[in-house]
Amino acid sequence: MRAIIFWDNLEIVDDYPKPVPQPDEALIRVSMAGICNTDLEILKGYMGFKGILGHEFVGVVDGCDDMEFWGKRVVGEINCGCGSCQYCQAGQSRHCLNRNVIGIVKQDGAFADYLILPIKNLHIVPESLSNEEAVFVEPLAAALQVLEQVEIKMGNSVIVIGDGKLGLLAAQVISQTGCSLMVIGHHPSKLNILKEKGISAILPSQADSLKADIVVECSGSPSGFVLAQRLIKPMGKIVMKSTLAEDITFNPANMVINEITLIGSRCGPFDKALHLLEQGVIDVRGLVSAVYPIKDGLKAFEAAKAHDSLKVLLKM
Amino acid sequence: MRAIIFWDNLEIVDDYPKPVPQPDEALIRVSMAGICNTDLEILKGYMGFKGILGHEFVGVVDGCDDMEFWGKRVVGEINCGCGSCQYCQAGQSRHCLNRNVIGIVKQDGAFADYLILPIKNLHIVPESLSNEEAVFVEPLAAALQVLEQVEIKMGNSVIVIGDGKLGLLAAQVISQTGCSLMVIGHHPSKLNILKEKGISAILPSQADSLKADIVVECSGSPSGFVLAQRLIKPMGKIVMKSTLAEDITFNPANMVINEITLIGSRCGPFDKALHLLEQGVIDVRGLVSAVYPIKDGLKAFEAAKAHDSLKVLLKM
Repeated sequence: MRAIIFWDNLEIVDDYPKPVPQPDEALIRVSMAGICNTDLEILKGYMGFKGILGHEFVGVVDGCDDMEFWGKRVVGEINCGCGSCQYCQAGQSRHCLNRNVIGIVKQDGAFADYLILPIKNLHIVPESLSNEEAVFVEPLAAALQVLEQVEIKMGNSVIVIGDGKLGLLAAQVISQTGCSLMVIGHHPSKLNILKEKGISAILPSQADSLKADIVVECSGSPSGFVLAQRLIKPMGKIVMKSTLAEDITFNPANMVINEITLIGSRCGPFDKALHLLEQGVIDVRGLVSAVYPIKDGLKAFEAAKAHDSLKVLLKM
Repeated sequence: MRAIIFWDNLEIVDDYPKPVPQPDEALIRVSMAGICNTDLEILKGYMGFKGILGHEFVGVVDGCDDMEFWGKRVVGEINCGCGSCQYCQAGQSRHCLNRNVIGIVKQDGAFADYLILPIKNLHIVPESLSNEEAVFVEPLAAALQVLEQVEIKMGNSVIVIGDGKLGLLAAQVISQTGCSLMVIGHHPSKLNILKEKGISAILPSQADSLKADIVVECSGSPSGFVLAQRLIKPMGKIVMKSTLAEDITFNPANMVINEITLIGSRCGPFDKALHLLEQGVIDVRGLVSAVYPIKDGLKAFEAAKAHDSLKVLLKM
């Protein structure tokens, strides 16, 4: 099968062996996949992953022992837990210490014709959603995780830092709470997407006097964390979404004195993401920059690295 | 009056002008004061403070317009808020953006014969408590703040990092919750104080395989934060108590992936601290290393810097 592999370099191969599922796994024919900033960080050394990249996808089940999923169009949760540890038993397999994560840790990902995933990770995609929408379920779920971890109420002031894919999704999700929301980003064209939806958005240079109860850091850059520390009010909460290969430096005294809480936030609820997309509450169609066939995968990665790029999709 | 002043160096003076209280303030004759790690950090440049050091004290009200406090033995909260901002109005004057903090920010502290403090900051000390005990109210309240911010239950595994004054107080406070508690410190003599109270305590070299739901970082050292990151379980909470002059470097990916929460924690409830001391639940008498007269203040600071030192007190 065709696959985009990161070994020491990024390569496209035509003859990668098609994977064979175990009894509790499904073989999925990938229809479409999205390039995430995490994929770009992996190219810089993040997680030390080597293999087929990709963890955002939609595809069709081509073989599995569970008739419920046979032939169905699905998206899938990316963490493959051991199933028996305390985390898996508590329904938190995304924190299983022995987990694989497709395209990130120890398991091939979705930038290929076929993908293997445990059946329990699958979610059926409603017919009303296009593939271009369904491929956003994984990052939208990650954006929704902010609300699973932090209560955001009307009256709260909230700043989202970053106008990339995750920032734009997080902003749309958070705006549903009725809070006072401001997005800070570097790209006027991306900020305009939010403004058209009635969400306030400004350049960093316009944020001098801002302060917020909650700051959601989605910039994918160490400078975003520095800005978050400046923008947060005493007793405020900073939600950290960016997975960075680099270290960051900070002075902990500010956090201690002002009793700031820093919350690491990662994968979120697929069911809620599917529901919001189906209801049309979150609009992701404006977030697609380009769609490339898998054979042009290297070009797709170059496009995804461009500063003005949003979501770049791969079509299998 | 006599005072220990940090200007560019630490000095003891005999002729510092006695402060004059405003109508809403009390003049307090200081009986005893404690040297805190924060004082030692100020000598290294922390907060850029210049003036009379000291924020842990017990004294007698020598003049104030409120008869309730006249002549009474008191301890006092260290944050002096403006009284009118949103934080002060919400009872959170410790986070007032315009606050003074005695011995730390813009206001002279307690290492002197007299001290000025707003009347609303005062708490009367029960007669059953000695001065040596009452001087621990401020740091004990800071230790209790951990429980105000994080729910610790039986069944939780908790590690306290640091066997200094704050670590030993935090350990005693946390042990009251019935959780599974372990303290990690470098000093066998200090760890023994805890072991005698039935609290488990080990050296860092013995902590290789430990993991906890909650880690309370009281080491006063950047290395304590590195250790905290290694010891915390996925979805765990790290409470940061150390106020450091230095920056710390860390990789945020670990925090994001494992959804760790980092909670800055500072001043706490004086009323609860007084109550616990009065009830004899927390024993602070074993935590005093030495008592020096104020005229030997420089020697007292040298003693407080020693690695095997616990609380060094100044007697006025």
